[in-house]
Amino acid sequence: MSQFWSPAVRELTPYVPGEQPTEQVIKLNTNENPYPPAPGVGEVLRHYSTNHLRLYPDPTSAALCNALASTYGVTAGQVFVGNGSDEVLAFAFQAFFCHGAPLDVPSITYSFYPVYAKLYGVELRQHPLNARWEVDLEALADAGESSGVIFANPNAPTGHAHSLAALEALLTRVTERVVLVDEAYVDFGAESVVSLTERYPNLLVTGTFSKSRSLAGLRLGYAIGSPELIEGLKRVKDSFNSYPVDRLAEQVGLAALEDTDHFNACRDYVITTRERTRTRLEALGFEVLPSQANFLLVQHKIYAGDQLFVGLRERGIIVRHFNKAGLSNFLRITIGTDDEMDSLIEALEVLCG
Amino acid sequence: MSQFWSPAVRELTPYVPGEQPTEQVIKLNTNENPYPPAPGVGEVLRHYSTNHLRLYPDPTSAALCNALASTYGVTAGQVFVGNGSDEVLAFAFQAFFCHGAPLDVPSITYSFYPVYAKLYGVELRQHPLNARWEVDLEALADAGESSGVIFANPNAPTGHAHSLAALEALLTRVTERVVLVDEAYVDFGAESVVSLTERYPNLLVTGTFSKSRSLAGLRLGYAIGSPELIEGLKRVKDSFNSYPVDRLAEQVGLAALEDTDHFNACRDYVITTRERTRTRLEALGFEVLPSQANFLLVQHKIYAGDQLFVGLRERGIIVRHFNKAGLSNFLRITIGTDDEMDSLIEALEVLCG
Repeated sequence: MSQFWSPAVRELTPYVPGEQPTEQVIKLNTNENPYPPAPGVGEVLRHYSTNHLRLYPDPTSAALCNALASTYGVTAGQVFVGNGSDEVLAFAFQAFFCHGAPLDVPSITYSFYPVYAKLYGVELRQHPLNARWEVDLEALADAGESSGVIFANPNAPTGHAHSLAALEALLTRVTERVVLVDEAYVDFGAESVVSLTERYPNLLVTGTFSKSRSLAGLRLGYAIGSPELIEGLKRVKDSFNSYPVDRLAEQVGLAALEDTDHFNACRDYVITTRERTRTRLEALGFEVLPSQANFLLVQHKIYAGDQLFVGLRERGIIVRHFNKAGLSNFLRITIGTDDEMDSLIEALEVLCG
Repeated sequence: MSQFWSPAVRELTPYVPGEQPTEQVIKLNTNENPYPPAPGVGEVLRHYSTNHLRLYPDPTSAALCNALASTYGVTAGQVFVGNGSDEVLAFAFQAFFCHGAPLDVPSITYSFYPVYAKLYGVELRQHPLNARWEVDLEALADAGESSGVIFANPNAPTGHAHSLAALEALLTRVTERVVLVDEAYVDFGAESVVSLTERYPNLLVTGTFSKSRSLAGLRLGYAIGSPELIEGLKRVKDSFNSYPVDRLAEQVGLAALEDTDHFNACRDYVITTRERTRTRLEALGFEVLPSQANFLLVQHKIYAGDQLFVGLRERGIIVRHFNKAGLSNFLRITIGTDDEMDSLIEALEVLCG
């Protein structure tokens, strides 16, 4: 604690990301893609003229916004890009959720939301998941006077996704404030609500290149919504940092977006491996929540989550364990390659044997 | 204006960066370096294994912090890195300048500071430059109850730099709040105050790879200060975005830092060209303010700044003109290559002939 810190900064509880180990391990803890990015990404780097790097980037990232607009069937004025969807979410909190009323959020969802709320002085109104571990859309819609609604779909760390129809039903009821649907994991089997942004000017959808496009190391995220929401994000971004997306990241992002075949193949591998892993975990005595994401949330009928976490760590396998009420018996396991999942199952056979 | 925007966001006046033209021009408007980054930067890109990009970066950017610490003779715990010094400055405003008292700032300095102030609800107390167009350190020190002090040294867009001794005199008088010295341009002939960070725990120095290291397109900036100030920045950053520096940017930054010979050569070229350009501009009837930066602030004895700006633009040369009281007759001219400055002088010979 320092006398030089702003008083509000003394009260912050920063987000703690999953461990980035330096030693050789099987890393199933931060929902990265086990497959490399599109081959075109390597071509960009090998042929890039570094003389371009002496110049500032395009502050609007127009080329990348245009490509995303084309990919998602929207106009470029409906697209915003930033330094990972984490930055886009931070801008969205400041742009849309500071109205002096609470923000409605599931009690179990992406754990960065409460951190943003503290940073921007937003009060949270947390709603428990329903009995099936799903985001309770009824509760979010019925909450009353609010600064907005935010949740992930598929949700994290549960993996459950609501249907497009269920989310549209929410949007017909919440019209006065922004509804932010965080689609970081949508490509692994869920329905995107991007198509609804044309009809619902208060719907903001965020996405990332970190998961389904294998570019967590590059920091590219985006938001899609009505032009008035995009303009709100731009006002905040242009008051914070003119160029959060660098020149290389933009070119790499373009190359990744272009390669639909690679994207589809990697996604299909992950989904196939996920379902194969589910079956094998259930055979070992795990309860496995339904998942449309690139991870599984699991708990064993006998063995405690923290013990299994430690046992796996000792065997060179890192998964995620959350010290949070309601989640402490669970492990969140990222879907890796088939070989990595074989190693996981072998280790669990010993630990749960 | 949208009903969905947070009230404070409706009041923002975003920063407007210098134009990034798409056509072929002589670009002397945003203080970029005319020389390419170190050759090692190209080596990094050509040999980078894109499979690394599927994994998140090190959230602490430890390798780059260590290299900066070694370059500047400080400990790694005194270094913070971010997505350009613009992001680092934004974090610093939130971390240190929100104490409910005004922030002391020169009336003419980097024009992003008032934008950050609005974003974070910080009141500014602006102090005119002295008669020699220098930051008035006496006025900053005498201002009374304050949330801190911020200015650029060399200052922008004037180019004047105070000596280390003058800045230390300020630090002996302002001890209760953070003094932020923005050294974006320090490498072009001014003295850095980094060595004072050990004695003054309230001194924060920011720097960038955008100017003297020719990497404006990559977005790398840093702060150096006492460990308690660095921890304050980390608290804000870790509540905003775990990984603002991507994997490629970190490796490229390391390669740029390593090549001292390239750094020195480019800096010396810029300084030599600056002084040569000064002499030629004075011969054309310009008043040229003393500059220890990679730009010159100039006004003609007869011709108005806005007219010259338009005349140069028509001849394919872009410089910066500020529509701001006290500055409207001036042009800020970035130092380019000798060839570029020859073209500038030729155009001005016609316009001022």
